[in-house]
Amino acid sequence: MARFAKPLRRLIDQLSGLPGIGGKTAQRLAFHILSMDDEEAEALADAIKEAKVKMRYCSVCGNLTEQDPCEICRDGRRDQSVICVVESAQDVMAMERMQEYHGLYHVLHGAISPMDGIGPEDINLKSLIVRLQEKDEVKEVILATNPNIEGEATAMYIARLLKPSGIKVSRIAHGIPVGGDLEYADEVTLLKAMEGRRTL
Amino acid sequence: MARFAKPLRRLIDQLSGLPGIGGKTAQRLAFHILSMDDEEAEALADAIKEAKVKMRYCSVCGNLTEQDPCEICRDGRRDQSVICVVESAQDVMAMERMQEYHGLYHVLHGAISPMDGIGPEDINLKSLIVRLQEKDEVKEVILATNPNIEGEATAMYIARLLKPSGIKVSRIAHGIPVGGDLEYADEVTLLKAMEGRRTL
Repeated sequence: MARFAKPLRRLIDQLSGLPGIGGKTAQRLAFHILSMDDEEAEALADAIKEAKVKMRYCSVCGNLTEQDPCEICRDGRRDQSVICVVESAQDVMAMERMQEYHGLYHVLHGAISPMDGIGPEDINLKSLIVRLQEKDEVKEVILATNPNIEGEATAMYIARLLKPSGIKVSRIAHGIPVGGDLEYADEVTLLKAMEGRRTL
Repeated sequence: MARFAKPLRRLIDQLSGLPGIGGKTAQRLAFHILSMDDEEAEALADAIKEAKVKMRYCSVCGNLTEQDPCEICRDGRRDQSVICVVESAQDVMAMERMQEYHGLYHVLHGAISPMDGIGPEDINLKSLIVRLQEKDEVKEVILATNPNIEGEATAMYIARLLKPSGIKVSRIAHGIPVGGDLEYADEVTLLKAMEGRRTL
């Protein structure tokens, strides 16, 4: 039986390491890449490298950005009195697609999950506390972590942590289907969730 | 509304150009790539470039290979009297997974499709004719093009083309679901299709 040649095998292995890409899909993608023009394949590889080199996390909010601080943190027209706490940079994008939220963000890069050994110190939470201490104008923190066990636990933890500060802490409403992924929520559902937020 | 930074946008665009990868999936993959270690992302990009540089088409059969001629063409133990004609290098892999066919291959890199303006001269067919003229020992040509309109048309065309030569021309049986894709057939179905082939 003929096996895949090594460079092809390596490409398939690399592709199947991506989320949602199984063995058969990786194979299909690899063959497609090999059938592409040299320039096209080069462009794909370069886009990966360039994105990796140029994109970094905003030192203020943790969002993905080319320039530090990020576009949102640098934008003086945004409401400086509200910080929306999300789990990932994708979630910032989902919120921004809604086009109705004009405050700031804080990206946790994960959620508290004792089952996976992820505690409060393993997510980007300390910098939120420091930020709130330094920034007097923040009147509300909206907890928009995912509506699953880890997200809820994280929201509860942060709410309890911020209680003494007197800052209003709210949680987005469960307009988003429970157990779902914030990243895939549609704009209207997200808007409903934002509107229905309740003080914790 | 914050937009994607340019390097991220470029990566998403490149990824969504791949088959079966829509906008949302491309976005998810791009964010995943950005969350990978630098070495991992580098390895992925390098695998694409390396595969593109090192893999080529076998000058004999048209199969994808690192060395020319390919492993199958170089293997003297394979049955030199049978050539199996397939549309793509993926199809060679599918046939090889069956582990029951020990003959040679010829990869057409497509199928005749007048609707798309692809005629017999646009696929790797001429080299098959030359190969059959030079190689007296070939006793049978098995047409294993996909069981769809283009694949059937291609099979019929080649069968008619080879008729005067006296070489036995067979078509794999329709054990494979009609309208399906040879690449995704399971080994048993493929085996049945090979066993039930009929002379055209």
